[in-house]
Amino acid sequence: MTTPAQIEELKTLVEPGKVLTDADSLETYGKDWTKQYAPAPSAIVFPKTTEQVQAIVRWANQHKIALVPSGGRTGLSAAAVAANGEVVVSFDYMNRIVEFNEYDRTVVCQPGVVTKQLQLFAEEKGLYYPVDFASSGSSQIGGNIGTNAGGIKVIRYGMTRNWVAGLKVVTGTGELLELNRDLIKNATGYDLRQLFIGAEGTLGFVVEATMRLERAPKNLTAMVLGTPDFDSIMPVLHAFQGKLDLTAFEFFSDRCLEKILGRGDVPAPFESRTPFYALLEFEALNEDVANEALATFEHCVEQGWVLDGVMSQSQQQLENLWKLREYISETISHWTPYKNDISVTVGQVPAFLKDIDDIVSANYPDFDVLWYGHIGDGNLHLNILKPEALAKEDFFAKCAVVNKWVFEIVEKYNGSISAEHGVGMTKRDYLQYSRSAAEIAYMKAIKAVFDPNGIMNPGKIFA
Amino acid sequence: MTTPAQIEELKTLVEPGKVLTDADSLETYGKDWTKQYAPAPSAIVFPKTTEQVQAIVRWANQHKIALVPSGGRTGLSAAAVAANGEVVVSFDYMNRIVEFNEYDRTVVCQPGVVTKQLQLFAEEKGLYYPVDFASSGSSQIGGNIGTNAGGIKVIRYGMTRNWVAGLKVVTGTGELLELNRDLIKNATGYDLRQLFIGAEGTLGFVVEATMRLERAPKNLTAMVLGTPDFDSIMPVLHAFQGKLDLTAFEFFSDRCLEKILGRGDVPAPFESRTPFYALLEFEALNEDVANEALATFEHCVEQGWVLDGVMSQSQQQLENLWKLREYISETISHWTPYKNDISVTVGQVPAFLKDIDDIVSANYPDFDVLWYGHIGDGNLHLNILKPEALAKEDFFAKCAVVNKWVFEIVEKYNGSISAEHGVGMTKRDYLQYSRSAAEIAYMKAIKAVFDPNGIMNPGKIFA
Repeated sequence: MTTPAQIEELKTLVEPGKVLTDADSLETYGKDWTKQYAPAPSAIVFPKTTEQVQAIVRWANQHKIALVPSGGRTGLSAAAVAANGEVVVSFDYMNRIVEFNEYDRTVVCQPGVVTKQLQLFAEEKGLYYPVDFASSGSSQIGGNIGTNAGGIKVIRYGMTRNWVAGLKVVTGTGELLELNRDLIKNATGYDLRQLFIGAEGTLGFVVEATMRLERAPKNLTAMVLGTPDFDSIMPVLHAFQGKLDLTAFEFFSDRCLEKILGRGDVPAPFESRTPFYALLEFEALNEDVANEALATFEHCVEQGWVLDGVMSQSQQQLENLWKLREYISETISHWTPYKNDISVTVGQVPAFLKDIDDIVSANYPDFDVLWYGHIGDGNLHLNILKPEALAKEDFFAKCAVVNKWVFEIVEKYNGSISAEHGVGMTKRDYLQYSRSAAEIAYMKAIKAVFDPNGIMNPGKIFA
Repeated sequence: MTTPAQIEELKTLVEPGKVLTDADSLETYGKDWTKQYAPAPSAIVFPKTTEQVQAIVRWANQHKIALVPSGGRTGLSAAAVAANGEVVVSFDYMNRIVEFNEYDRTVVCQPGVVTKQLQLFAEEKGLYYPVDFASSGSSQIGGNIGTNAGGIKVIRYGMTRNWVAGLKVVTGTGELLELNRDLIKNATGYDLRQLFIGAEGTLGFVVEATMRLERAPKNLTAMVLGTPDFDSIMPVLHAFQGKLDLTAFEFFSDRCLEKILGRGDVPAPFESRTPFYALLEFEALNEDVANEALATFEHCVEQGWVLDGVMSQSQQQLENLWKLREYISETISHWTPYKNDISVTVGQVPAFLKDIDDIVSANYPDFDVLWYGHIGDGNLHLNILKPEALAKEDFFAKCAVVNKWVFEIVEKYNGSISAEHGVGMTKRDYLQYSRSAAEIAYMKAIKAVFDPNGIMNPGKIFA
């Protein structure tokens, strides 16, 4: 916690009015999209320059005050939650696009630039920023880097990590590091930039990021394919991946489709219903590519892997097919779902999914288990809806048991307990299912190097 | 240095005959492709298993003996040179491809797998390992990872870093870490895998690497374009990059071409000669793409950026065009060249190159300066041939002066003193031109975390 005198001192480090301590602000800026932890920050500070960030970090070191970095607050692991009297450092006012480099196709961003803002800027330049996900309208570049955000185009474009050409960070000692100088090739020792990507603000805060852009995709075309069972999705993925450069390969179960169709505002992909669906996307650069896609579809039907399917013929149809997948998370949020974001290597997905399905249905046959996710990346989103008859507390108590089963199965398959949402506080106590004791010890030692006083987002990733 | 008793103990840790101390072996395994340092190792040890590597590292810790990892010994920065009585750990007998995962398109490799071996294995599977460079017939995967090898396809496929799905490493304490579990998405804290990539064996040794493969490129087609000056290459790059997915964009000067044509075994690209040439490559997936390339070529001619050009019409012609670029290094080696491998952001390349050219020609007008490199990545290879009349020692003395100018200009442009060859010993004393004092201090602190006794390739990257 902080004293009033410390807060007064903090106020001298930033512009007037840029430290807030009213209850509304503490509540708003103290949390992310998770709801397990009650926000309880001491103050919210809004730096406008790198120098102010450095001054705040030095102030925090002097008084041993914990800082929590705050971006769009769309996180799903409570990495940006301030539940213990921390001071929240919001990057809302460091939200400028600083520079565009035409030949390098790079954009220098302040950390508070919203993902969508970067996407639109790229569009204006005839280019493309490919990391995209449901919260892109609110999430900020700094937060994306902190969690190494993934999303729906990873199969083609990779995670946020791939798009960071350079980083300026303020470490836990207040030092400013300029990492990688925005170079493509730079073989001069350890690539410290990589350490800060996905570190959830525990080593330092990003104060500037140079992001790469790509050429815009052309004539994106989607297919939704109905499969008789989950296992069939894998040879479908394999067949299409061998023929086309996929920009996405997603899946969802019929239980998900049912919820989507229940909304009434999204058309069914086709008349029949099948247990599972694959949604794939590619650039139909010319007729050859579209024909290749159709031939592959026919091959999959012949093999019995696909029962029905549709290919988008217009932008409108493309968007409608994507709604089937993208609306799931929001649609099912009414049923107070238990959610988990896990991954294994692609080849192991069917066995992994079956193991989890089996143990949950054997023990809790009344649970409504919904599966969807980024199957091309081995990333599954497990969702369990609360049975109406079950009280909330009882449901969550049972889900805590499910959690443990899930993580044990993750460990068995050598997978990840957090594919793309990060660790934060929600998965901190389960980290050992995905990282060895030696790895965790090394991570802590690295944290001590960059943040000797332990003031940078403490209690996140590990205790 | 080691004592005879220590070497006897070392022998007990590996199979019989797998410790060599004869003069020939010490000479051969003690060096890489650089020639500045005389090899002087104590012994060469050839582990065959991860457990043996761990035992060797524990033995080295116990006796405080320095270890140097050794792969294909094709390095150009003396990172694998043992000049101070170190024990060389050669991975020549850990050279098996362990596993192929069809759905993940990954190959589990021991560190001694030769790059070409992986490329051919990928080909057998109908896939492609895209990191390629002149030494791929000898360089090993472990060494590629240690230097984060780049090469001629980086513009499309990135560096070795992009292709490492997972790593098993033995740290400086002998601990085995399994990093990233070969996952595509894994947001569980610091990505330690990234630290070991490009660390030149100073944090630990790679004992297994899971490498990703890609679909094979189709109908690769190359163009060589002659330009009136260096500056024109940039708008040519920009024009083609806006229209095509380039798989390479290289350049070389007419001075380079002259040396290549002097060999007598490589045909000229076209009749006329121009001061500079761009070599670009793309997948001519269909006629549209080839037409787009030709239209862009015509546009560049109209703009005066290109004076002449040729597009490959066959595999043979493709290979011949590539020889113009790929044979340069070997061809000019007869002239005892001073070499430097440097990079800046792409947009700064013309000004950067001019600055270096100007200072060298003003001071040493008799020097024959040859430029070539991976212009699409901002990576230039500067080569200066020894004037015949100049004695070797005098040439090298003058080159030491050139070195300093070059690095000062690198610093001015915020570039890299080593784009892709690493730091090793040859660039160790110049690291401060590309990395700040704070960064270097953090790197040393990280080394101390993973290698507390300083036995892992000491004296490389930093002193």
